[in-house]
Amino acid sequence: MSITIAVDAMGADRAPQPEVEGAILAARQCDVRVLLVGQEDVVSAELAHHPEAGSLPIQVVHASEFIGMDEKAAQAVKQKRDSSMRVGLRLVKDGTASGFVSAGNTGAAMVTAKMVLGVLPGVDRPALANIFPTAANTATIMLDVGANVDCKPQNLQQFAIMGEIYFRSIFSGRFPTASNPRVGLLSVGEEETKGNDLTRDAFQLIKALPLNFLGNVEGRDLYNGHADVIVCDGFVGNVALKVSEGLVEAVRAILKETLQSSVTRQMGYLLARNAFKEFKKRLDYSEYGGAPLLGLKGVAFVCHGSSNGNAIKNAIRVAAEFARSGLNQKIEERIKAARHKTGVPERV
Amino acid sequence: MSITIAVDAMGADRAPQPEVEGAILAARQCDVRVLLVGQEDVVSAELAHHPEAGSLPIQVVHASEFIGMDEKAAQAVKQKRDSSMRVGLRLVKDGTASGFVSAGNTGAAMVTAKMVLGVLPGVDRPALANIFPTAANTATIMLDVGANVDCKPQNLQQFAIMGEIYFRSIFSGRFPTASNPRVGLLSVGEEETKGNDLTRDAFQLIKALPLNFLGNVEGRDLYNGHADVIVCDGFVGNVALKVSEGLVEAVRAILKETLQSSVTRQMGYLLARNAFKEFKKRLDYSEYGGAPLLGLKGVAFVCHGSSNGNAIKNAIRVAAEFARSGLNQKIEERIKAARHKTGVPERV
Repeated sequence: MSITIAVDAMGADRAPQPEVEGAILAARQCDVRVLLVGQEDVVSAELAHHPEAGSLPIQVVHASEFIGMDEKAAQAVKQKRDSSMRVGLRLVKDGTASGFVSAGNTGAAMVTAKMVLGVLPGVDRPALANIFPTAANTATIMLDVGANVDCKPQNLQQFAIMGEIYFRSIFSGRFPTASNPRVGLLSVGEEETKGNDLTRDAFQLIKALPLNFLGNVEGRDLYNGHADVIVCDGFVGNVALKVSEGLVEAVRAILKETLQSSVTRQMGYLLARNAFKEFKKRLDYSEYGGAPLLGLKGVAFVCHGSSNGNAIKNAIRVAAEFARSGLNQKIEERIKAARHKTGVPERV
Repeated sequence: MSITIAVDAMGADRAPQPEVEGAILAARQCDVRVLLVGQEDVVSAELAHHPEAGSLPIQVVHASEFIGMDEKAAQAVKQKRDSSMRVGLRLVKDGTASGFVSAGNTGAAMVTAKMVLGVLPGVDRPALANIFPTAANTATIMLDVGANVDCKPQNLQQFAIMGEIYFRSIFSGRFPTASNPRVGLLSVGEEETKGNDLTRDAFQLIKALPLNFLGNVEGRDLYNGHADVIVCDGFVGNVALKVSEGLVEAVRAILKETLQSSVTRQMGYLLARNAFKEFKKRLDYSEYGGAPLLGLKGVAFVCHGSSNGNAIKNAIRVAAEFARSGLNQKIEERIKAARHKTGVPERV
């Protein structure tokens, strides 16, 4: 049966263009029905540029407002009750859609998703999970990368459970480690005693879980493929993500500059440019289709504001896989078992 | 007058080779006297490979023990009372040397430096300051990158003061912003209200200081040159540093792999290889000579374990400049003024 995914058509920097393109690609390739949520005239005008869309399972759902990239999340969510995000997430809540994708304001999307969908029983805080490519040609999931800036040890324990289940699900059959993902706790040294107050306590809680726990890992393990899932609080994870984005930008800029400084080098660049394209692609997170907010009663994915049609398509595809896989039920069961085992009460 | 710097000759991964090379380079080029601290027979044997060293102001100071890279810092410092680190730092404490450089176990170096030298009056915690190259061809100092994993808001305020003074000093005449360095607080969003409990409180304390405060900056600002000094706790800073190192390694590996996959690309690589060398150099932190531990009664620099002779030489040069500049006196004065102004008592 085909799955329905609601897409915030007003989110991306160049909205609604990438959203419409992504919807068309997904409807064609991924056996999904797409609901494009946004100002009807704007979205329909963009759809009109693609006459082939008429025969695809794509529908526009009107939402009179949208939240801009620079708006403050809490305030915007409160004031704009008919935003494309809220309308889209309500479609998930009422069962019309099985998942939601937005390339808009990440903070607003997280607040709205938590408010509209609620969290799974036993989950204290949802976590934003991001996929990083590694030098070993694998991928590492880091969570939380920004949903919770102040975490308690049991939050990190729950992130470990949710991240492990997510890695199993999306990389099953692709990476051998997906049958028993290696989970690391991000710290500043490998020994059990290294870290801050939060990680030292979280270490013991994660150690008590029935999963493949590596113990502490360090920042450099994000890109060497030594761990499949890396757990941290949302402040640290957000810094790790944004430092990486900044460094990749800097590397591109410096390489471009140095490779254009002489004719010989320019010739070298021309000969090697396919290698550069491949290199950029390997580092292009959009291949993996955005970041899920794990722990919600429902499926919600957040993409980069700079997402193109292909990135949106991938996010729609992955959101549909998430919905099909019954992942949330597994998360609920495992969290419940962990609470029982480690003696953490249902609500803390 | 020439300055004396004590160098831990037993620290680097390939010790004492890079230390001896660095000492020779520094003694030749930088108007310094170098005391190589370590097991006398080992260091002298390495010096014997460089007959020209005999005429240079280099001396060996014996220390019977040394602390390995994989030893636990606290324990090793306690047990090895005649380690090259402790003997070297005692030379600073008793005035024989004006600064200390080690490429050994960072944790052990920090613990030993704090124990032997003590902190400046008014400083609660010393901070490890690392210099990052930017795409704008400038440099950004981040502190703390690992000395303190759990910080209080006033620690971050003091880091801001110390980082600003250090940036002024080492980049004076090189970058125009060194006359009034732009200081940012690392957070997860630009607005004053964004961040965790620690950064929100630290924001107000730093705002009260007489310095060029940008407010919150994000992880990506580490490499774009928007800030000169970025302040954070040592856990977050260590993650930022190690994520960067890991990503640079991954980029190198991926580029190498993609550039060797066909003959055309290999030709391209040969033509462009000088560009790559330059690129690697721009990202090579060793150019800046290691990381100082700011806030100590004395001068102590920590270098990478993988440092080569050039990196050690640069660290010796920068340590000598630090000692000459009277930086610690300035730090003491500014910290005192800040405590007075923001009402933080002398010891908290």
